[in-house]
Amino acid sequence: MGRDLDRELRAVLRPDQISTSAGDLKKFAVDQGPVTDYREPVAVLWAESVTDVQAVVRLAGRHGVPVVARGAGTGVSGGAHATAGSMVLCLDRMDKILELNPEDEIARVEPGVVNADLNTAAAAHGLMYAPDPASYKISTIGGNVATNAGGLRCAKYGVTRDAVLALDVVLADGTLIHTGHRTFKGVAGYDLTSLFVGSEGTLGIVVGVTVRLKYLPTEIRTLAVFFPDMASATSGVLALGAARVQPCILELMDGASLKELDLRNGSDLARRGTALLLAQFDGLAAAQEAEIASTALVALGGSVNREDPDEAAALVDLRRHSRGMDVDSEITVGEDVAVPRSQLVHYVVALEEMAVRHGVGVRIIAHAGDGNLHPTFWVQEAGQARIAALNSALDESIHKALELGGTITGEHGVGQYKLRWLPLEQSVEVRGLQLRLKELFDPLGILNPGKAITGR
Amino acid sequence: MGRDLDRELRAVLRPDQISTSAGDLKKFAVDQGPVTDYREPVAVLWAESVTDVQAVVRLAGRHGVPVVARGAGTGVSGGAHATAGSMVLCLDRMDKILELNPEDEIARVEPGVVNADLNTAAAAHGLMYAPDPASYKISTIGGNVATNAGGLRCAKYGVTRDAVLALDVVLADGTLIHTGHRTFKGVAGYDLTSLFVGSEGTLGIVVGVTVRLKYLPTEIRTLAVFFPDMASATSGVLALGAARVQPCILELMDGASLKELDLRNGSDLARRGTALLLAQFDGLAAAQEAEIASTALVALGGSVNREDPDEAAALVDLRRHSRGMDVDSEITVGEDVAVPRSQLVHYVVALEEMAVRHGVGVRIIAHAGDGNLHPTFWVQEAGQARIAALNSALDESIHKALELGGTITGEHGVGQYKLRWLPLEQSVEVRGLQLRLKELFDPLGILNPGKAITGR
Repeated sequence: MGRDLDRELRAVLRPDQISTSAGDLKKFAVDQGPVTDYREPVAVLWAESVTDVQAVVRLAGRHGVPVVARGAGTGVSGGAHATAGSMVLCLDRMDKILELNPEDEIARVEPGVVNADLNTAAAAHGLMYAPDPASYKISTIGGNVATNAGGLRCAKYGVTRDAVLALDVVLADGTLIHTGHRTFKGVAGYDLTSLFVGSEGTLGIVVGVTVRLKYLPTEIRTLAVFFPDMASATSGVLALGAARVQPCILELMDGASLKELDLRNGSDLARRGTALLLAQFDGLAAAQEAEIASTALVALGGSVNREDPDEAAALVDLRRHSRGMDVDSEITVGEDVAVPRSQLVHYVVALEEMAVRHGVGVRIIAHAGDGNLHPTFWVQEAGQARIAALNSALDESIHKALELGGTITGEHGVGQYKLRWLPLEQSVEVRGLQLRLKELFDPLGILNPGKAITGR
Repeated sequence: MGRDLDRELRAVLRPDQISTSAGDLKKFAVDQGPVTDYREPVAVLWAESVTDVQAVVRLAGRHGVPVVARGAGTGVSGGAHATAGSMVLCLDRMDKILELNPEDEIARVEPGVVNADLNTAAAAHGLMYAPDPASYKISTIGGNVATNAGGLRCAKYGVTRDAVLALDVVLADGTLIHTGHRTFKGVAGYDLTSLFVGSEGTLGIVVGVTVRLKYLPTEIRTLAVFFPDMASATSGVLALGAARVQPCILELMDGASLKELDLRNGSDLARRGTALLLAQFDGLAAAQEAEIASTALVALGGSVNREDPDEAAALVDLRRHSRGMDVDSEITVGEDVAVPRSQLVHYVVALEEMAVRHGVGVRIIAHAGDGNLHPTFWVQEAGQARIAALNSALDESIHKALELGGTITGEHGVGQYKLRWLPLEQSVEVRGLQLRLKELFDPLGILNPGKAITGR
């Protein structure tokens, strides 16, 4: 870090808000996404107020130094990876719930509030904040907004964008703006709120979030339905749709995922079947919906276990944290494609076939209700030929998802890692438009450059 | 219209796609919003294909002639009013449902498809397109997208933006782009889809819409709950929230509205109470939710009528078309504010008080579940003093809604009519940002200029 920048930073932040220690530069160089271009930041900063964020952004602009905003760093696409010469700006100390209004059914929070903490506070009023990424126990609302995070409950309750009513955003020149409304409906002006949601800190830095809360369900029923193969389990997704019941959670796991879960947790899932469809229903009609679902799934050859509440919670928890077994490395890469629901069964078959052909391993878990799949490809060792096979399988899995009408990223975001695939999904015109938007919001290119969009 | 433009238009459109007749120029000069600056277009054009729209936009750019895109013209904020020297481009002939996929639970439609027609087609598969503006029998999906239309069912199912997955848009230079995804989830790139939704044809012209469908409920229960006064009826909204039941429709009508409905429909609503809360529940738990709701509302002094299905449908229909009695004129203006739900009761009291003070009439109907109110102010005659009183009351009602944390428009859009109030809600920085966005998308200012946003 240049001496002028260092001095000016110290004029606006306390010493304990700035670190240039080797340990911190290393720790905050990456999030949980695959690392393809390791770069350490020149400094790690902790904002404790909107004013801090404004001051840092203004200094960044004056010195032409990029700012990478960061919540808990749980992103898995490298959206919070440091870039060359950048400052990482941590927002996790801005962790106050500013307002929780049970009559208006909204909350106003600072960006560093942890998802689970907001849910705990909301639960005291019989409310919940619906989007629940697997990382919900540690990830922040600001990070969830930056990536438009999804989760398990999205099948019924929608993703982060659907829950966000208004934002406070610091723009590239340090200006603070307020977008959106605290009412459920509002159509004054352009929908800037949605434009910032999912923009990964490249258009502005979110410093305040107003969210809509939903009613915390009191009735919950969970079905664990084991199938002899993935094709029939996947058909179950369409069967539930045809029965017109809407699970709040509908998760699909293949045999390899069940074995891996058993290995790590001492469970006995793989003994019970080769594929698992985990369906949870909530609300006053939960029992009735579970009954309808059960009939539909038995007809497909499913073996239905009605879980008692404790076992059900444990099973959902196992699934929720299955990401833990799939931390990306050079030899293990988790994907995040989505396909139209009717294509799920074809896609699953194709994934299994391509893994065999490329000689790599694959495990499949999916937020099946949304058609959002997280296949994990892996090889046993890091040799050049093995890594090449892994990358070929990954590339083919992406191409296939797009061919079936899908997307390269259902909920993780493009970040840095998926930039190489974005041109396969988005036309040159759309990419050009996005670049011009980026230039409009951030003419100096200081806000998390090289993430989320690409002109190439 | 200039001779060159006329000749070039006739080179790309058939004669029956172009009108310059006095009757058409008059008919297509305005939508259903208040008229403050009457201007006739130089021509009315009917596009029948994406290529037609591209050709017209390119000609418009070359000749510097504004294009006002128009669906059914049912907007009530003047978003489709013609502006000086403009061509009105009607999209209602582009009325094909291109795809309705019951397994993927989506539909792809041309912009001119009528909302009710899409719902009829979806109902054949047990599905529905949820957003249901009062105009749903005649308004188009393209128009609904342009205004981010709401409706009665939004309380539970969300507004147009929540239903739109992807768009085909013709940009100001004639380029066709595709935004979004046909999967339920997708976070590749910026959320351009949401940016176009509600932008009233000022950023691009929507020529294709992919929407998510929802399950058509089979069980429906409707409660008509009459109260002795508006304050207790309004309290009922919070009571239902506190009971954690989610109506799909929750409508509030005051005594003046009930009388007006009776007068026009021969009903006897006003005899039954001074304020009506109309609550509809759907889904498998409808009966149980209606029971919980009933208990909560009786405790507030409500008199509950469990409507039989036919009566219930008639009552909802009456409410749905109550807008018909409030077509705006010089002496009658309907509003569209929204306030946080906890402020509904205070706002209703304030409205009644300000009407008395300004010596004008007021009728209040509201999508109460969303805090979205449609008060209608009126005076008996058009004298200058009366119109001034009407405008003072309108202005005060807007100021009061904002003071309570609300918005100037819940679902109708800013259009042309509400531009004067937008600076009360949006900061100069937000308005500046929106102007720069408009310039980026439409550097020549040909797309519906003077609507939706303002720099003043």
